[in-house]
This record gives sequence, structure tokens and C-alpha cells, in this order.
Amino acid sequence: MLRGTSTVNSRQQFELIDITAEIAAALREAAIADGICQIYNPHTTAGLTINEGADPAVRDDLIAALRRMVPDLPYRHQEGNSPAHMMASLIGSSVTVFIADGRLQLGTWQRIFFAEFDGPRRRKIHWRFSPD
Amino acid sequence: MLRGTSTVNSRQQFELIDITAEIAAALREAAIADGICQIYNPHTTAGLTINEGADPAVRDDLIAALRRMVPDLPYRHQEGNSPAHMMASLIGSSVTVFIADGRLQLGTWQRIFFAEFDGPRRRKIHWRFSPD
Amino acid sequence: MLRGTSTVNSRQQFELIDITAEIAAALREAAIADGICQIYNPHTTAGLTINEGADPAVRDDLIAALRRMVPDLPYRHQEGNSPAHMMASLIGSSVTVFIADGRLQLGTWQRIFFAEFDGPRRRKIHWRFSPD
Repeated sequence: MLRGTSTVNSRQQFELIDITAEIAAALREAAIADGICQIYNPHTTAGLTINEGADPAVRDDLIAALRRMVPDLPYRHQEGNSPAHMMASLIGSSVTVFIADGRLQLGTWQRIFFAEFDGPRRRKIHWRFSPD
Repeated sequence: MLRGTSTVNSRQQFELIDITAEIAAALREAAIADGICQIYNPHTTAGLTINEGADPAVRDDLIAALRRMVPDLPYRHQEGNSPAHMMASLIGSSVTVFIADGRLQLGTWQRIFFAEFDGPRRRKIHWRFSPD
Repeated sequence: MLRGTSTVNSRQQFELIDITAEIAAALREAAIADGICQIYNPHTTAGLTINEGADPAVRDDLIAALRRMVPDLPYRHQEGNSPAHMMASLIGSSVTVFIADGRLQLGTWQRIFFAEFDGPRRRKIHWRFSPD
């Protein structure tokens, strides 16, 4: 399959969930040698980002830094999740990774994360592989 | 047409302008079943983002949060719009949306916004559809 | 060549390095009339962004604004570069530029920057051109 949709279940209000293994498995099944992998988040209070996966403390620090940047102040939107919307636009709704020799061309320390800002929720992501 | 340029007229200094209908109309005309839609902002004091479109208060909150994150302090750049340049890099210069069954594969609440940070101005965006 | 890897040497801890000329040279060699250029940063304490290149003060202001947004507070990650990881996710790991008439379709004032947040280091970037 060159495209698909996967489910991501978040367990906390703020959480970075490593989805690299799932995308890598879909890529192996697609058996593409070279091309582009694009991943898309269809939610307005979540995002996608690429960052370090080795030390889980990096994820905690990222969330702490985001929460300090976008504090829980009074906002006009009555649902109370305006900071989550702001974080979604800061982090971005999609990521692009190159495919080389049948594998995701990530850096040594890079992993792909679904960024939950308004969980816990059942979320989904769309992915596509574009062969050269 | 698989690519084109559209005009966006902003009316305020900070403004999120919903451009979804225009991109969707161009896609209908292009008559592509499946592929990728990419939109590019060629300005250095504006950006593109995908977020909630239902409640206009979300847009107000996003702008208020950005202005608090990048306050109007003394900067070295003499044109006085350094916060607008910073917001451009935070929000990003392009967005990607998947095309499925002839339509933009946006989430239920998602809309595509041109983000003006130094208006009012006459702006433009470039868009491209890449069929599978 | 439709894809490649280039080296970027940063000289400071925080630095925006203009890589436009190098990408434009690779594009001339590739001799593509129309398509998409994608650039990818494989590092977790750096990013890629498009912003103004004419006035170097804009770069200084961007770095100053980022450092104020993500201050050097105590973090859980023991390597001491958590702000750099945060900036990487804020700025983003890739940029997309359209190719039209054999050239990068950048705006008048736009340049492509490698954003170093934990230098000085020897870095690399991957780039790809996808012809229409």
C-alpha cells in the first residue's frame, strides 16, 4: 500500500508518541526503494514533529517548554483548549521524510512523533509514500 | 491547472485568512483523484497554517498567543517588523494536504489559513497539485 | 543529480546559515524545469527555515527571539541542550520550495537557512528535486 491511515491512542493530556516503527513497517510492506514519505495529522489540537527519541527526558522537556511558551491564560475560545490549538500550529500538521534504499532516511537520533496536546484521545494519522 | 498563484488581501496587521475554499475550487477544476496538494507562501512576514475554522475565537487566541510569545521589544532590524519575521519562521512557509477521492483530505475541523503578521497588504500564494 | 547531501559547517552555538546558493547550484546542474525541491535536516538540535536574507539583523533578531522564547532553565535532559531540541521542533525539520522555469520559486526577500541551535558543528542536509 502506498497510502494509509493509522490509529494513535494517547494516554495523557500532553504526550509525544513515537510512531516511527509503525511508519517503517508500512514502508517495508510498500517495498519502495527511493522516494518521499509524508505523514499528515488531521486534528487541530495535535501535531507531528521529528526529534530525539533516545532519551525520554527530551520529550518531557519539549512538553514543559511548550507549556511555558503557551500558558493556560484566559482565552476567547470557550472549549478551554486554546493552548493546544496554538501548539498545533507551532509544531505543524505534517512531516516529510526521504526514503533511500528502502528505508526512512532519518538522522541517527531522529524519531517521528505524534504530538498530543489535548488528550487522552483516539487519534489518527494519514501517511503516503511517493516512489521516485 | 496543476499549479497556480492566488492573491490574498489582508485587512489587519495580524490576521488568519481562511483560503480553503479557493484551494478546493482549484482542485475541483484540476480534477485530480489522488495525490498531494502543496501551498507555498513567498513572503517573509507571513505564513501558512492549518487549524480550526469553526470558531473564529480560535483565530483570535492564536494571534494573541503569538504576540505574547514574540513581544514588540527593541530589535536590530530597523523596519520594526522583527516579530512578524519570527512568527513567519514559527508558523512555517508551506503546508501539505493529501488529496483523496478528488478532495482535500482535511480533518473535520481543519481549515487552511494564510497567516498575515505585517498587514494590511496585498499578498500571494503559490499552490501545486501532484497527482499520483 | 536529483538528490544529494551537502555539508554545512556552523561556527557559533546559534546561527542561521544561508544555503540558498548551494541548493540553486544543485538545481541548475539537475536541469529541471518544473517540480518540487525538498530539503531535509537529519539533526535533532538544528532545523531549516525560510526567511529574509537581505538584512543580517533579521537573523540576529530571530535568534534573540527564539532564545527568549526557550530560555536556558533547568531541564530533565542531562546534555544541557534541551532548548536546542525545542527550537528544532518549533522551526521544523524540512522545507519545501517550488521549482518553476528551472529556478527556485522563492519570494523576493526569501532565502533558505540552515538553523544551528547547538553549534559549532559539522552538519549535513539532504535535498531532493522531484520533476513534474
